[in-house]
Amino acid sequence: MRLLFAVLTCFTAAIHLAADGPFSQKTLDHAAKLRELGLKDTRAYSLVESLTVEVGPRMAGTPADKLAVAWAEKKFREMGFDHVAAEPVPVTHWVRGPEHAWITAPYPQVLHITALGHSIGTPPEGLEAEVFMVPDLATLKKSKAEDVRGKIVFINHRTEKSRDGNTYGKTVPGRAAGAAEAAKLGAVGVVIRSIGTDSHRFAHTGVMRYEEDVKRIPAGAISNPDADMVQAQLERGKPVRIKMKLDCKLLGTVMSANVVGEIKGSALPDEAVIISAHLDSWDLGTGALDDGAGVAITMAAAKLIAEAGVRPKRTVRVILFANEESGLEGSRHYVTTHQDKLQNMIIGVESDFGADVIWRFDTRIDEAYLPVADAIHKALEPLGIARGSNRAFGGPDMTPFRMMGVPVVSLLQDGTDYFDFHHTADDTFDKIDPKKMAQNVAAYAVFAFLAAESPDGFGRIPVTAGSP
Amino acid sequence: MRLLFAVLTCFTAAIHLAADGPFSQKTLDHAAKLRELGLKDTRAYSLVESLTVEVGPRMAGTPADKLAVAWAEKKFREMGFDHVAAEPVPVTHWVRGPEHAWITAPYPQVLHITALGHSIGTPPEGLEAEVFMVPDLATLKKSKAEDVRGKIVFINHRTEKSRDGNTYGKTVPGRAAGAAEAAKLGAVGVVIRSIGTDSHRFAHTGVMRYEEDVKRIPAGAISNPDADMVQAQLERGKPVRIKMKLDCKLLGTVMSANVVGEIKGSALPDEAVIISAHLDSWDLGTGALDDGAGVAITMAAAKLIAEAGVRPKRTVRVILFANEESGLEGSRHYVTTHQDKLQNMIIGVESDFGADVIWRFDTRIDEAYLPVADAIHKALEPLGIARGSNRAFGGPDMTPFRMMGVPVVSLLQDGTDYFDFHHTADDTFDKIDPKKMAQNVAAYAVFAFLAAESPDGFGRIPVTAGSP
Repeated sequence: MRLLFAVLTCFTAAIHLAADGPFSQKTLDHAAKLRELGLKDTRAYSLVESLTVEVGPRMAGTPADKLAVAWAEKKFREMGFDHVAAEPVPVTHWVRGPEHAWITAPYPQVLHITALGHSIGTPPEGLEAEVFMVPDLATLKKSKAEDVRGKIVFINHRTEKSRDGNTYGKTVPGRAAGAAEAAKLGAVGVVIRSIGTDSHRFAHTGVMRYEEDVKRIPAGAISNPDADMVQAQLERGKPVRIKMKLDCKLLGTVMSANVVGEIKGSALPDEAVIISAHLDSWDLGTGALDDGAGVAITMAAAKLIAEAGVRPKRTVRVILFANEESGLEGSRHYVTTHQDKLQNMIIGVESDFGADVIWRFDTRIDEAYLPVADAIHKALEPLGIARGSNRAFGGPDMTPFRMMGVPVVSLLQDGTDYFDFHHTADDTFDKIDPKKMAQNVAAYAVFAFLAAESPDGFGRIPVTAGSP
Repeated sequence: MRLLFAVLTCFTAAIHLAADGPFSQKTLDHAAKLRELGLKDTRAYSLVESLTVEVGPRMAGTPADKLAVAWAEKKFREMGFDHVAAEPVPVTHWVRGPEHAWITAPYPQVLHITALGHSIGTPPEGLEAEVFMVPDLATLKKSKAEDVRGKIVFINHRTEKSRDGNTYGKTVPGRAAGAAEAAKLGAVGVVIRSIGTDSHRFAHTGVMRYEEDVKRIPAGAISNPDADMVQAQLERGKPVRIKMKLDCKLLGTVMSANVVGEIKGSALPDEAVIISAHLDSWDLGTGALDDGAGVAITMAAAKLIAEAGVRPKRTVRVILFANEESGLEGSRHYVTTHQDKLQNMIIGVESDFGADVIWRFDTRIDEAYLPVADAIHKALEPLGIARGSNRAFGGPDMTPFRMMGVPVVSLLQDGTDYFDFHHTADDTFDKIDPKKMAQNVAAYAVFAFLAAESPDGFGRIPVTAGSP
């Protein structure tokens, strides 16, 4: 069934692409207009200000998460979206309590720590043990149980800056799997050097995973300067002891929602281009960059299309996903509950990398449709956006879609500074530059409009193993 | 007595200055050698690493303050200083406990707060009241009691960046006197926008003062992003309420010490050039910039002079003062207890503005001796240091000396970023650039050596009103 569909769409595409190009001059002129209007946008900046001030941190399952859902529905309605819905999603509810850590020997010092998402807490009196330092997760895996047993493992990996964020992927396994690997060797706790590129006293949270049948031990991250301190004390050759008190716990499953707002298509309203973000945030900051920015950019871009005078033939659907942060729960649920309509989702993208300028346009589409993507790129190019590869990631919440064959694109933002703030108390509104944000709105409006006007969509991509 | 002395020294100076210049070529060559050696210095960087790692935060009166005194004595002795002493000083002991604040209405949010030094605490259950915002202290003073009564005053002044730090002086009165002025109008608490130039979630502490016969109310600072949040909520036109819990208190007077290390002069050992810093720090960071850097720079500069092969004729005295942060208690005590020897202190300087490069050399000396200062400047100029005015501040701990007529200089550091970190948890070792620090060591060594070799010192400056 899927194969047949792919063959048919390839054939149709071939017909259309025989002409001058996939888009009429009138369509391209309107895209240019959207681009210019987008660069003047102030709505996205106002939206993220509103979300961060009036809702603030909105971790999945918390009362503020519900406030955020209500906020998004209200904003979509106020902005006149054609269809607005909050689609219920069960989410994991984990809560953070007070958290403290200290070096107790040889030179007592306070450490700035934060629990990793889904970590268990320590006993109320705290957990104190000698530190066993490893440079990374790979070294931990090769360590001997006799060296690790009874200790707090300190994973001292360092995250370097990069424009495309690839360096994050190198250290994040230490955050995700550090506790399980340390526990297998008998450790009593894990502390990681924050997955962050700043040199400030902000500990970076982020989700971790326990393994079935492996003892659960508490896991926290300390800021880069604090990690330097632990390292400096260890370099003096004396045993270093850490005491940590983490009062966090999983509370089970509660209800949240994916919030959807649509600008209906003029000719093919059942077919949709998805531009998305996630509505939840971590609890430490106000979730301005992660992902208030994405929420605001996608809402503002769709609204811009709605008010600019030309309805594209397909629907532009903004989806604000629930609980991206600790397991892509909203997007997985969306794909599962809308499986029968995935064929109508012609392409998707998520904005979830802050608010810096977009510098590259990647795609992951059926190769037969690359000329359409290249034509879209021509309309993005005046924004300073280069044409990238056809191996787009699409954004975290596009993963379940991608796995089911839905084509995706990435409008890659400059992520050089993103991991300075990511998952910290310092992810606040003041970090957003309104001019850069407007460039994002312009790019999303141009992309969504042209994708929705594409002759025949973008085909399908290979379905990958696993469930969404 | 003082007048007679001034006349005599002026006369002597005039004689010496009639020659080719105040310094021999051999002396100037040695100064050039010190300059080159200083630029290669790594000792200062190691010293501040040691102080921050092995002692860490060292607020006056705390156990860590005593550790710092022991650390300084030990380092002076290890480095072979001729005379080392810890001279007891009574200091005010104030302690900080847990501190929390929230906006409770209209949009509940967590605020990052820190108590101002010497503030009283709130009741254990916290203090909650409506906010009354003023742009600065001057406006508060002109406000009506009926508007302020029963409220928490929010002083929303903003500290701008400046190379010479003059902007700090514009907002710091709000920190110092905000609580007293607010209490006069019936306020129940004060929150200030941090005296800081960063946009991070670090609240900046710093000392405040109560007035006799004015009710004492708790005073805290919130970070710039948190101040933005309070302001944004107020701009929505609804009453904003803040709840604050500050568990801090004054514990009375305990003993600390000024730690002195001397490189004895070859000809006039009783006459001394003072290069100084303060040993105490606030409790939030590890006091790397404020003032571990000054401690390290002055110790390393004096040691460099000692080991470079030429003893200057006068003594170079390093003084690491106790409790600069909450009242210049160490330097006041030093001047009081050494009043009979002030005439032998020919000039002084304090390094207390971080570890960035020195860019200007200011003096405050008898004008008859300006040619000597200009000759010293010529030796500093290759370090990129400009000649400034004869209205030097000298550093906070030079204030009591200056008031008693002791000439001072300022080796002005670039303070553009200093108030990003000042008095926060973020004042840590990683903020120091070893190359810039070495430039400081070079400048201090050149200055101290030549000042100690000056023909007849720098005269006296006018004694100012008040006690030290």
